[in-house]
Amino acid sequence: MEWTLARRCAAMNASAIREILKLAEQPGVLSMAGGLPSPHGFPVEALREASAKVLRDTPREALQYAASEGHGPLREWIAAHLALRGLRADPAQVLVTSGSQQGLDLLGKLLLDAGSAVAVESPSYLGALQCFGVFEPGWAPLEGDEDGPHPDALREAARDRAARPRFAYLLPNFHNPTGRLMGDARRDALTDAARSAGVPLVEDDPYGELWYDAPPPAPLAARRPEATVYLGSFSKVLVPGLRLGYLVAPPALMPKLLQLKQAADLHTGGYAQRVVAELVRDGLLERHVPTLRARYAAQRDAMAAALRAALPPGCAWRAPQGGMFFWLRLPEGLDATALLPRALQAGLAYVPGAPFYAARPDARTLRLSFVTLDAAQIASGVATLGRLLHAALAERDGRLAAEEPVAGDVATSAPAPAASRPMIREEAP
Amino acid sequence: MEWTLARRCAAMNASAIREILKLAEQPGVLSMAGGLPSPHGFPVEALREASAKVLRDTPREALQYAASEGHGPLREWIAAHLALRGLRADPAQVLVTSGSQQGLDLLGKLLLDAGSAVAVESPSYLGALQCFGVFEPGWAPLEGDEDGPHPDALREAARDRAARPRFAYLLPNFHNPTGRLMGDARRDALTDAARSAGVPLVEDDPYGELWYDAPPPAPLAARRPEATVYLGSFSKVLVPGLRLGYLVAPPALMPKLLQLKQAADLHTGGYAQRVVAELVRDGLLERHVPTLRARYAAQRDAMAAALRAALPPGCAWRAPQGGMFFWLRLPEGLDATALLPRALQAGLAYVPGAPFYAARPDARTLRLSFVTLDAAQIASGVATLGRLLHAALAERDGRLAAEEPVAGDVATSAPAPAASRPMIREEAP
Repeated sequence: MEWTLARRCAAMNASAIREILKLAEQPGVLSMAGGLPSPHGFPVEALREASAKVLRDTPREALQYAASEGHGPLREWIAAHLALRGLRADPAQVLVTSGSQQGLDLLGKLLLDAGSAVAVESPSYLGALQCFGVFEPGWAPLEGDEDGPHPDALREAARDRAARPRFAYLLPNFHNPTGRLMGDARRDALTDAARSAGVPLVEDDPYGELWYDAPPPAPLAARRPEATVYLGSFSKVLVPGLRLGYLVAPPALMPKLLQLKQAADLHTGGYAQRVVAELVRDGLLERHVPTLRARYAAQRDAMAAALRAALPPGCAWRAPQGGMFFWLRLPEGLDATALLPRALQAGLAYVPGAPFYAARPDARTLRLSFVTLDAAQIASGVATLGRLLHAALAERDGRLAAEEPVAGDVATSAPAPAASRPMIREEAP
Repeated sequence: MEWTLARRCAAMNASAIREILKLAEQPGVLSMAGGLPSPHGFPVEALREASAKVLRDTPREALQYAASEGHGPLREWIAAHLALRGLRADPAQVLVTSGSQQGLDLLGKLLLDAGSAVAVESPSYLGALQCFGVFEPGWAPLEGDEDGPHPDALREAARDRAARPRFAYLLPNFHNPTGRLMGDARRDALTDAARSAGVPLVEDDPYGELWYDAPPPAPLAARRPEATVYLGSFSKVLVPGLRLGYLVAPPALMPKLLQLKQAADLHTGGYAQRVVAELVRDGLLERHVPTLRARYAAQRDAMAAALRAALPPGCAWRAPQGGMFFWLRLPEGLDATALLPRALQAGLAYVPGAPFYAARPDARTLRLSFVTLDAAQIASGVATLGRLLHAALAERDGRLAAEEPVAGDVATSAPAPAASRPMIREEAP
């Protein structure tokens, strides 16, 4: 064809999983695949009122081109709101973005050259991997435990100063996809390690307000403000469809970020910013978010109970303390991607874990969202998953039994039977 | 500081002119600087009704995450609407973007590697230069005449096949900043030249509906659909504050464009798309755009008359047949950037032409917008400009007179007096 594509496009591939998951939109499929908030949680009436008010009182201002940095009163509210969570920033450090996804794009442009290293959790948010991938970085995956990435992994990633990561991308609160929460001590240890290793931080926090047991510890940005960019979003606590997020950056980065924002889309829609400014000024989030927490906590509990009831031995998970996801590890010998078509056929959609890994995917993992389905649907969907996994295990064991008699065939590539390794079956707190 | 910026940031500089133009927001300054449409032309009542309808009938769909390619009915309308202008495309070729500025960003990502050449008109839209600049291209400026870039210039830019431009970025309709309209024959000649030179086209068309004398010829994309991406926008014909644009691309490019869109901001806001879909379905643009044309045509005429009345000899311009801008070339020895602070002090803002050039700026050029001011303000602002230019010419001639007596000083760097070169003073048609 006439077109010569940029080199970055060669590494981009249409997600096979996305193609498969189009089937999840068919009637009769219960989807635990999406990262969508529940539309039942949208404060529609309040949005109607705020929208009418903005279009009545300031229509021409709301509908005209606007400042690239964002709507002043909204930036002020964001700064004041974050101060309550321990992150003190001037409104001049706040840049309103077209969803926090755009914040990732702007940071990729600001900080990544082709070949620059980026440290990411293993696994990490798929959308961030795709977004940073556009800038052709090298990946430095950070291994960790249930409390977050190991500080030593970050130190190790920065050992070669020439290949030192331009930043570490971290989701401390109810991480996507694993749901894990980074504890206070780990936050301190990790910021200390990053400081001594000279690695700045990008802290993505779309889920921080969605805690079901106790509020999360103060953000990383509160501990290391000069070298952390914090990303926030209204998509999970209000609605996604207005595409409204923000970042908070050290003052030294703001001029370039602002130029990149101008180049990317001039500015984020003024109407959306004013509607949200109207809502938050009026205290809507203080009233609304607790109702989301109650709703999602009950759904989280329903999924935890359903998993306990339905899954075969050898599955490992941990009920999250917030956010939207359970992260499930299947018994040895099962592959979540390979099982997906059968799950869809049985009426259940989930996201296999493999694409969330920048390197070395764990094929046994998958992500389940609990926020868009009610308790009965959750029980039904998880029961479907349980039946599927029992069947898959029976097949696996039959396969193994058929392979076993070959004497001397020690180095078989077939997985060892589940019983040969102790599996932790984790449960809700 | 801890942060290492990407190489691309070194070439990005805060616009000195943008800083100066912040003064244009002070009371008492008449601004002809902006590229804003007139807020008096916003169909506020229709927007209120469409907004209320969307939030009443489909609130949860409008406020939820949505498809990256855009809202189906809006894509269908766009395809049908462009067919009326001679550009036939399937709705599947339409990608809804967060303003057409985002279309430029996506195309930069799709097509530009560091060092790739991009052919641009000389001058060209500043926001496109900034946007493509993020991808560190080399520039191939295309010289032209009042009808558009010379086909030979495009052939010449593609002569070295190794450095052949990845695309030529063109604004055939009421070009920003010059206001020029590319005629039908030039469109054919230019697409022929591009085809034979193997250079794809990016056709940016925010102003095509804003014609005041006659509709423009069919788009370049209608002449060469397989190798042209067409960019459109609702910002100038409806409102900018919803940030809604679109691109129409050859089918082969759509999968990668869609992935880049996902990585950039997941999708464009569903509320905004549904409100606009509601408005256009109802035929609003057919009723509304003619009122904009009438309003802007009168203001165009007012500016043409004011320029004829107020400007000193030696200024050159041409009244545009559409769009938002007059492009003015000052007499020799005057510098539009240097004069801007004095203009602001006298209560007038304009944009100097220099930043619109990818290379070799013409310091004598400036851009005047006629769409946000009424006829009296236009007359007053242009009179201010006239006084300023008369004064500057007097100073210039005094300076020249003072320098002239030095015998033998032939190679003076001072410009020749205006009288020494014939200046064309162009007028409204």
